[in-house]
Amino acid sequence: MLTNIYETSLALLTDLYQLTMSQGYWKSGRSEREAVFHLFFRSNPFRGGYTIAAGLEYIFDYLKQFRFTAEDIKYLSQLEGNDGRPLFATEFLTYLSELKLSCDLDAVPEGTVVFPHEPLVRVKGPILQCQLLETALLNLINFQTLIATKSARICAATGGDPVLEFGLRRAQGIDGGLAASRAAYIGGCAATSNVLAGKLFEIPVKGTHAHSWVMSFDDELSAFEEYAHAMPNNCVFLVDTYDTLEGVRNAIRVGLRLREAGHEMVGIRLDSGDLAQLSIEARQLLDAAGLTSVAIVASNDLDEAVITSLKAQGATIAVWGVGTKLVTAYDQPALGGVYKLGAIKNEKGEWQPKLKLSEQAIKTSTPGMLQVRRFQNEAGAVADVMFNELNANLDTVVMVDPLDPINRQPLDGGLNAVDLLVPVVRNGDIVYRHESLTTIRERVEQQLALFHVGVRRHENPQPYPVGLEQELYDLKTEWIHRARSIQTPL
Amino acid sequence: MLTNIYETSLALLTDLYQLTMSQGYWKSGRSEREAVFHLFFRSNPFRGGYTIAAGLEYIFDYLKQFRFTAEDIKYLSQLEGNDGRPLFATEFLTYLSELKLSCDLDAVPEGTVVFPHEPLVRVKGPILQCQLLETALLNLINFQTLIATKSARICAATGGDPVLEFGLRRAQGIDGGLAASRAAYIGGCAATSNVLAGKLFEIPVKGTHAHSWVMSFDDELSAFEEYAHAMPNNCVFLVDTYDTLEGVRNAIRVGLRLREAGHEMVGIRLDSGDLAQLSIEARQLLDAAGLTSVAIVASNDLDEAVITSLKAQGATIAVWGVGTKLVTAYDQPALGGVYKLGAIKNEKGEWQPKLKLSEQAIKTSTPGMLQVRRFQNEAGAVADVMFNELNANLDTVVMVDPLDPINRQPLDGGLNAVDLLVPVVRNGDIVYRHESLTTIRERVEQQLALFHVGVRRHENPQPYPVGLEQELYDLKTEWIHRARSIQTPL
Repeated sequence: MLTNIYETSLALLTDLYQLTMSQGYWKSGRSEREAVFHLFFRSNPFRGGYTIAAGLEYIFDYLKQFRFTAEDIKYLSQLEGNDGRPLFATEFLTYLSELKLSCDLDAVPEGTVVFPHEPLVRVKGPILQCQLLETALLNLINFQTLIATKSARICAATGGDPVLEFGLRRAQGIDGGLAASRAAYIGGCAATSNVLAGKLFEIPVKGTHAHSWVMSFDDELSAFEEYAHAMPNNCVFLVDTYDTLEGVRNAIRVGLRLREAGHEMVGIRLDSGDLAQLSIEARQLLDAAGLTSVAIVASNDLDEAVITSLKAQGATIAVWGVGTKLVTAYDQPALGGVYKLGAIKNEKGEWQPKLKLSEQAIKTSTPGMLQVRRFQNEAGAVADVMFNELNANLDTVVMVDPLDPINRQPLDGGLNAVDLLVPVVRNGDIVYRHESLTTIRERVEQQLALFHVGVRRHENPQPYPVGLEQELYDLKTEWIHRARSIQTPL
Repeated sequence: MLTNIYETSLALLTDLYQLTMSQGYWKSGRSEREAVFHLFFRSNPFRGGYTIAAGLEYIFDYLKQFRFTAEDIKYLSQLEGNDGRPLFATEFLTYLSELKLSCDLDAVPEGTVVFPHEPLVRVKGPILQCQLLETALLNLINFQTLIATKSARICAATGGDPVLEFGLRRAQGIDGGLAASRAAYIGGCAATSNVLAGKLFEIPVKGTHAHSWVMSFDDELSAFEEYAHAMPNNCVFLVDTYDTLEGVRNAIRVGLRLREAGHEMVGIRLDSGDLAQLSIEARQLLDAAGLTSVAIVASNDLDEAVITSLKAQGATIAVWGVGTKLVTAYDQPALGGVYKLGAIKNEKGEWQPKLKLSEQAIKTSTPGMLQVRRFQNEAGAVADVMFNELNANLDTVVMVDPLDPINRQPLDGGLNAVDLLVPVVRNGDIVYRHESLTTIRERVEQQLALFHVGVRRHENPQPYPVGLEQELYDLKTEWIHRARSIQTPL
């Protein structure tokens, strides 16, 4: 089963309705009609004030292998409709088997700070192709963006102390673990325990021993001694298998012997109990023994809230091991990104804006071919303005707050402006350079520094201004009125 | 990146500490010392009364490919300790490269109802090998068990109405989606939207069209007509792109024309708004038009609680589309399974029981080589009793409730007894037959029927009795006392 997964192509990693709609477009002669779709989310995860975009590199890998294999086509040919007849026409399946992607993608570089309603990826091309890519793009971007954001929040809570990601055993599947390790590193984690992620993504890996090591010996001191004998250059002793402070004392005994032999113990790890109190007592014991450079590592269902609380209690933890709560984004395990049609060309080749109405105004999509311009002054980012590339006059940008449209604010022409979406795929070919995770991590730091501390704080963050350029706002308003009247032709 | 993942072996899909401990066992001459580990969880997910075991087939696939490749060894050889010297000895890496698994695994068949503290998998073999398998086994079993359980709960809430799993776009990574589709089908879902899961696992696939299909046309009626023209045998019209009830009326127009042409519309789908009220009104419109067999499909952040509420409000929904909340197990996205050493042979080859103490009694592990015997009468399951295969007198089984040890209950000798763990791997080779998902799904139904409705209900379920066989209880008590005294040799 795993074997099959690892040998298959991923063109079928999609919802069936993308294929049935594709056949519909094909049968109705619309398959090559040019359209533009936007991938975006509607609210920052974790009740936070910002989000870190991630997952783009996976999209490139997905696109590189995108093809319908003979085996895929055979599978599709066997599917039936409710009358027992084939769901897909043979000619359509031939079309799929010969399909070569010709879309253009623009995307926000990984590690960029983004906000609700801003496109993270924009796909322009034949509507059939845009549709076929939807599900995989959402899967890949939703998850890594979620985890990179969680990681950035956890790393903010430790205030610069290293965070080790330990989550593989509780992750949602194999690449639920691998992609999480990657995204966690993007968000700021210092290392992972996941060896395969270390190998594939060049992430530093860390780890020493578990309770089972201690339990497999007759007593704890022998276990520590034997470990130190085997790997004197990698000693972080887990001290809570029996009694924690007694464990610290045993670690100290071994640490002092290590020092005599010319090695330094790296740390001790606490994995249960009152981490604040135990860390304070352990620090005292270590310092009293002259082991002032030995770090206290802590783990046990940590997240940004628990870390903040431990810090407030004076915990002397220097390194934070975070697993389940990080790699599953436990308090909000899905981002909820969507992929919406923004415009489609009519038979004359003219772009027609499109939007999805909703009873909830926040769920009504924005029409056009969208771009996001970020305005900055010397102190940092001032506002993001979404505009329609099909029809924008950007000489003087007036920003409308869609939740408070009377608020129309001209943006100072002296501000620096950066467009967030950059070309990444043209005519099906990747035109974006590969970025190292180091580059992406650095971008996260640089980007976060652009935003006011109020936007970055975890409790009741200050909303960062994201508006629509005035002409786009007016277009959206017009099309909301039109959409309400176009359901049935008169 | 994806490409790399799909081409790699999975022996490195582990935590680094499994490898450092392995080197420790190897250096201390203990690598072949026989040990037994148990994989179990400590509480049912979702505050429920039961759990559905799943994921075993993935373990077989993982074991089949388990090997350290030359590339893996090269990667490991480059890792360094805190002194900049290699973390792993060359001779140890040679040992790994030549390693062939020789463990025995016993496991609970997929689809079995299980309870906290019961081993789902038991691994017996050289301690080094047991350790190397830990992380991947936890990753694979934790996630699929979680999702199969969630699916069973959702299917219980619909009371037999089909549930369609739609979650791929919000799943945690690629096999976060694929494994979830598989586990959701095990738990009772009728179909998935995930085409690749359909192909790999032979799960029925379903899907028709999205909002984008409707938006790509000038009006909704044309969109429905064009879809019906293209695929008359697969029509479930999504009616909420603009105004829902107007959408139902358009679907009815097309449904009646389809009928004239000899086809039947399958259904309509509601994806927003007040699903209870809209479904009632839509049903009336459909019935009044003579379309009584057209099903109402609903989706939009559904889970077992929302479904129960909609049912209570008289919703006329016949088919339930469930995505995010199912595939991410949104309200509890990790199971928290653990893998604990139960016993190890000493130098004389005698089994020594082992346990992990904890300040929380529930987290103290149970020593021995454990098996679970389920006692049943004609009405169903009566109690599960864990016993130690190394030392058990099972002529008359006395069950001790570990949370209420005065409660010692002899079990009626006339009860049927089934041992839950069955041999699945012997000396590294898989000895268990492949089971179809159909077989596993049927097991879930048969198993759930064994348990009292009080155990199965979602609100404040009745705890099902799971106890320790008396000798095992006494052994555990003895070893708790011993463990408290063995930390430091006297």
